[in-house]
Amino acid sequence: MPDDFERMWRDLEPVGRSAATGGYFRQPWTSPERELHDWFLAQARARDLEVTGDELGNLVAWWRPAGALPASASPGVVTGSHLDSVLDGGAYDGPLGVVSALAAVDLLRARGFVPRRPLGVAVFVEEEGSRFGMPCLGSRYATGALGWRELSGLRDRDGVPLPDAVGAATAEALEAQEQAGPAVRLSRLRDQVGVFVELHVEQGRALVDRNAAVGVGSGIWPHGRWRFEFTGRADHAGTTRMEDRADPMLTFAMTALAANKQARLAGQRATFGRVEAVPNGTNVVPSSVTGWLDARAEDADALATLVEAVRTQAAARAERDGTSLSIAAESHSPAVWFDPRLVERVAAEHEGGDWPVLPTAAGHDAGILAAAGIPSVMLFVRNPTGVSHAPGEHAEVPDCLVGVSALADTLERLASVEATG
Amino acid sequence: MPDDFERMWRDLEPVGRSAATGGYFRQPWTSPERELHDWFLAQARARDLEVTGDELGNLVAWWRPAGALPASASPGVVTGSHLDSVLDGGAYDGPLGVVSALAAVDLLRARGFVPRRPLGVAVFVEEEGSRFGMPCLGSRYATGALGWRELSGLRDRDGVPLPDAVGAATAEALEAQEQAGPAVRLSRLRDQVGVFVELHVEQGRALVDRNAAVGVGSGIWPHGRWRFEFTGRADHAGTTRMEDRADPMLTFAMTALAANKQARLAGQRATFGRVEAVPNGTNVVPSSVTGWLDARAEDADALATLVEAVRTQAAARAERDGTSLSIAAESHSPAVWFDPRLVERVAAEHEGGDWPVLPTAAGHDAGILAAAGIPSVMLFVRNPTGVSHAPGEHAEVPDCLVGVSALADTLERLASVEATG
Repeated sequence: MPDDFERMWRDLEPVGRSAATGGYFRQPWTSPERELHDWFLAQARARDLEVTGDELGNLVAWWRPAGALPASASPGVVTGSHLDSVLDGGAYDGPLGVVSALAAVDLLRARGFVPRRPLGVAVFVEEEGSRFGMPCLGSRYATGALGWRELSGLRDRDGVPLPDAVGAATAEALEAQEQAGPAVRLSRLRDQVGVFVELHVEQGRALVDRNAAVGVGSGIWPHGRWRFEFTGRADHAGTTRMEDRADPMLTFAMTALAANKQARLAGQRATFGRVEAVPNGTNVVPSSVTGWLDARAEDADALATLVEAVRTQAAARAERDGTSLSIAAESHSPAVWFDPRLVERVAAEHEGGDWPVLPTAAGHDAGILAAAGIPSVMLFVRNPTGVSHAPGEHAEVPDCLVGVSALADTLERLASVEATG
Repeated sequence: MPDDFERMWRDLEPVGRSAATGGYFRQPWTSPERELHDWFLAQARARDLEVTGDELGNLVAWWRPAGALPASASPGVVTGSHLDSVLDGGAYDGPLGVVSALAAVDLLRARGFVPRRPLGVAVFVEEEGSRFGMPCLGSRYATGALGWRELSGLRDRDGVPLPDAVGAATAEALEAQEQAGPAVRLSRLRDQVGVFVELHVEQGRALVDRNAAVGVGSGIWPHGRWRFEFTGRADHAGTTRMEDRADPMLTFAMTALAANKQARLAGQRATFGRVEAVPNGTNVVPSSVTGWLDARAEDADALATLVEAVRTQAAARAERDGTSLSIAAESHSPAVWFDPRLVERVAAEHEGGDWPVLPTAAGHDAGILAAAGIPSVMLFVRNPTGVSHAPGEHAEVPDCLVGVSALADTLERLASVEATG
């Protein structure tokens, strides 16, 4: 079994890796990500798993032993994650959950286990939102939180519309599906998932502090993305007197500092990690600067207070700079609490005692499925440095194997009965 | 004559213009700029002007009447400017000087004037530095301030090396020229220019305040570009606690605000108009942020003091943020004072009295030629709004025609004698 895990891990290692940084560029509907998609289909075939999915590219590979009811009749136990990455991301965020899911299937078969319900391994597309700005795009579509109407209007940072990115034939199929009504599409995935378990590399150092290889997620902080567009007046950087300018770079700069300060004071999180100036020339005062705020907090009130504080300070500075400000909410994910009984069962289910239970400030497909009413839970694997969304993201192989074993135990328990209750 | 000016102006109007903004994108060695290059060659042919130039693409179209000495024997009177633009720039910065030069030749011929020295119309490449980050790239090469060795290492923002941008055949020719020694190349242009006059749209409102259609440049403020690279540590924007971060966006933001404040206090100019974050993802703390400082001041000491103040504040904030800072000077242009006798002659040369004389904070090819020891001077045409390097840049046709006439008068005076003295 360890061999299977490490062999699959080696398969994935070179795909989409930058020689310059060692980080990964696996943006959806680009060739590295399509290569991973094909790799997953080959893994499913090699294990005799039957693949279903939707036109957008979300996939579930089903293990349905003879005699077991199909997922359409008896919703299955599903595990999995995603294969896309942030720009210049790490190897583990996403792929660890998919590889561990396949390895858990191998381990259960080696144990001679036979599920009494369908057992699926899922891959969701565009979890990171690194290309179209919408995190968990695939799982939102699969659960009906977003429809093709909304998706078809999205563009990537080069201006490529999503329908062009997925290809004309796929876009036509998605359009036809939309015409047929969402019920038809959703029945293929959402209604087949009775319970969802996502294994993920931890994105902080809580498990290091607790000296545990594995932990269980209790929930996800509410979070969202807001696009702040500051508009000023383009001018010559040499000849225009400082007092005659309306420079949106200044308004952006003060807003980025204010967001950091507000989050520090409140014990929450706020980040401007992305900025785009227009025309972005050295000798030109910009006509506009756009910054994207990523904000997260322990509850909905704290998040609303944080975003409002940033907005207020940005507006005040815009008035001083002679610039204008418009804010658009690009995505918003309310707080998610995983099913408490499920969390307790998963945490208690191992020899060494209870796994630690912890919330996370990161969004995940499991959060989208939970919000859609599907009982869901997460397993985290220890990250020695806590670094994530960066080339240095890491987990040790022995910890990963404990993760596979914990996932197999969880799936075995859930798939031994016909309904989750 | 007015017809000629307006006809040429209409030729240029659509080339490289963005339908979205109305601004111009005429970056060197892109198709709109090459189209302007070809247009200039056609204009020269239509006027029976003989074109010389260098491999990089700097051009001079010579009016050499029968009996006049060639420029290689008797350095000529040259006027002109450039045809490239900043990103999303205006129509006038550059092209007004080229079109006015051609219109001045037409006007002199209509007057029956015959020059006693060669009279040239010049176009320099990449004056704005909008693509390779080096302003006045063409005139620096033509005067020997920069050689092919330095140029061949430059890359544009997409990473395209300059030798690839100019094309393989041109790059080979430039390399061969370099091998032959700079003397051969320079003799073609620098040594042929005895005096240089550049007409340019004003980039401020000094002529509006003085109620004058035309003014004469006395000199150019010292100025330069410094690349500030702030390096931090990429991390997950949700899961990494604020106090555990090393976020270079904060250091950049504070530096942009500090530059503005220092320039305001000192009465000088400092701008961060260009910024690039890596990886520039919404849910990632950046690993690095690079900002470009454009700084200008009335004298060298004031400029050094300004840049040093920005550097000191950036370094102090980097320490606080746990980031590191490296600064590279990308270009530096010392103060230029145009030949005072030439300035006086040009300013006095019209019926209504003296044209106003004023310095400028903008760099120009005339400044590079002056620094290379060529007597040079500039004429400015009134800009009603003062807006420049932006789609709204403008000059009224009657003012442009006064500019053509002032330029023709100046050229007539300079080309009536065999040497400028």
